[in-house]
Amino acid sequence: MLAVTILGNNSAVPAFDRHPTSQVVTLDGQHFLVDCGEGTQIQMMRYKIRRGKISHIFISHLHGDHYFGLVGLLNSFSLLNHQQELHVYGPSPLKEIIEMQMKVADTTLCYSLHFHSITGEAVLVDNEKVEIKCFPTQHRIECYGFVFREKKKPRKLILDAVKENLIPLHFYDKLKEGADFVTSAGEVIRNEWLTTAAPRGRQYAYCADTKYNEAMIPHIQGSDVVYHEATYLDNLRDRAEARFHSTSVQAAEIAKKAEAGRLLLGHFSSKYDQLDEFLTESRAVFPNTDLALEGVSYRV
Amino acid sequence: MLAVTILGNNSAVPAFDRHPTSQVVTLDGQHFLVDCGEGTQIQMMRYKIRRGKISHIFISHLHGDHYFGLVGLLNSFSLLNHQQELHVYGPSPLKEIIEMQMKVADTTLCYSLHFHSITGEAVLVDNEKVEIKCFPTQHRIECYGFVFREKKKPRKLILDAVKENLIPLHFYDKLKEGADFVTSAGEVIRNEWLTTAAPRGRQYAYCADTKYNEAMIPHIQGSDVVYHEATYLDNLRDRAEARFHSTSVQAAEIAKKAEAGRLLLGHFSSKYDQLDEFLTESRAVFPNTDLALEGVSYRV
Repeated sequence: MLAVTILGNNSAVPAFDRHPTSQVVTLDGQHFLVDCGEGTQIQMMRYKIRRGKISHIFISHLHGDHYFGLVGLLNSFSLLNHQQELHVYGPSPLKEIIEMQMKVADTTLCYSLHFHSITGEAVLVDNEKVEIKCFPTQHRIECYGFVFREKKKPRKLILDAVKENLIPLHFYDKLKEGADFVTSAGEVIRNEWLTTAAPRGRQYAYCADTKYNEAMIPHIQGSDVVYHEATYLDNLRDRAEARFHSTSVQAAEIAKKAEAGRLLLGHFSSKYDQLDEFLTESRAVFPNTDLALEGVSYRV
Repeated sequence: MLAVTILGNNSAVPAFDRHPTSQVVTLDGQHFLVDCGEGTQIQMMRYKIRRGKISHIFISHLHGDHYFGLVGLLNSFSLLNHQQELHVYGPSPLKEIIEMQMKVADTTLCYSLHFHSITGEAVLVDNEKVEIKCFPTQHRIECYGFVFREKKKPRKLILDAVKENLIPLHFYDKLKEGADFVTSAGEVIRNEWLTTAAPRGRQYAYCADTKYNEAMIPHIQGSDVVYHEATYLDNLRDRAEARFHSTSVQAAEIAKKAEAGRLLLGHFSSKYDQLDEFLTESRAVFPNTDLALEGVSYRV
């Protein structure tokens, strides 16, 4: 099951018990951390995210509210004797920032840390379960969104039909992959008589920080859930534009044009104590909008 | 009034709702931040520390649990339109670490930030209210403690005596500084007939991270309050030694030898859920021991 748990939904300055950006995307027991603002490791404890399950961390850009918690988390992994390899993806200067802080502290991590510099549009992870891509957003500095696409699952056997047609056990995996069966007499038993279609792979798109940017749409098209920042309400469109951020309505317009299933709004400015108005404004354009609330897991 | 408010009392990994090291020393409305572990700005909000009053920040050493919250705090000051000059004192590589992170984020602070590299034993601040010194501790990497000494206050006028002796108003400030008054007839009216002694300036010593180290004692001698780390209980003396940390009993021995008024223990290892035993062990050697508890202000 693909899901996303929100650890921080605020913009730059923490406020009203809202924290800087961080999310955990989970897929069948694997955890992918997306951005890591200051205090992320504390939020992970608060919401019982198992640190040991994190194998990949994606940093969208190098504004502090998206990565100042990273070096502390990497340190803690080591102090907690994390053994798994850890892969960090982010803009290239991140490597030097991390390494410098490790060096002055005379820290040697107890696990293998692999840093992957991201640039442009690329496939970052591609394994049997998931494909993870990055794409550029339009922000004040180099910034990337990420798309998590669950791989198509195997087809499901129709057990009665499989038995009736005397398909040998060793051919079951091939059936799941879609192969027809040919009997020794040369008779073709077509796969669709023996299996049902696999459930469609789900897709989650994280649009990071960005101004209103239709160039992003092809990358996130058809996602089941889109997270889009909404730093401001729509009466501050000018400010959003000037600061390379978006408004509630702009986020909704992107979700609508991308034919998303559901929109999650986050990265709220610290000037807002109450968030209801974000929902009202966004739902007027894209009804299936929700606030990305800290501590809540959203099924994709 | 000199006081210290604890924002974080835990060692490296946050645990049991205890946070990495940070304290605020307050003196007559001025705030001095001592160390700044990850999440310090959130702890400041939690305990209603007014960020705008902070003018000086002291970083003892470059292990992350003592400074990973600094760059986020410096950023937030700017986003909150802090106008006052800010002075940061710490080991020299800190400057480059901060500057690099500001540079990649394309951040220009809205206030003047002055970085002061510390080394050896030195007077860092000396004004009419306070003298602040650093001294080296004995840790795995370069590390400093800090001593805050309240300047001696002016003597207090004995108003009846002042009036009776017809001391002119313009001479009151000189009286407070200790001067005798000489009448036009050449008669000396001695200061001690006209004033009472100023209250003694109080002293707070922050011993940062350190192994048991008697060389520190001359620096903290006679402090009204000493903060000393106690990462471990005394049965883990060997581990403390190996990791350049101290135990409850070692902290108490230092406080006793330094003739401190009171000892505050902090920097507890994440392995300890309960802290009572730290008190028991330390008080057996130095009775006036307390735990440095988060959110609590201790008068010096």
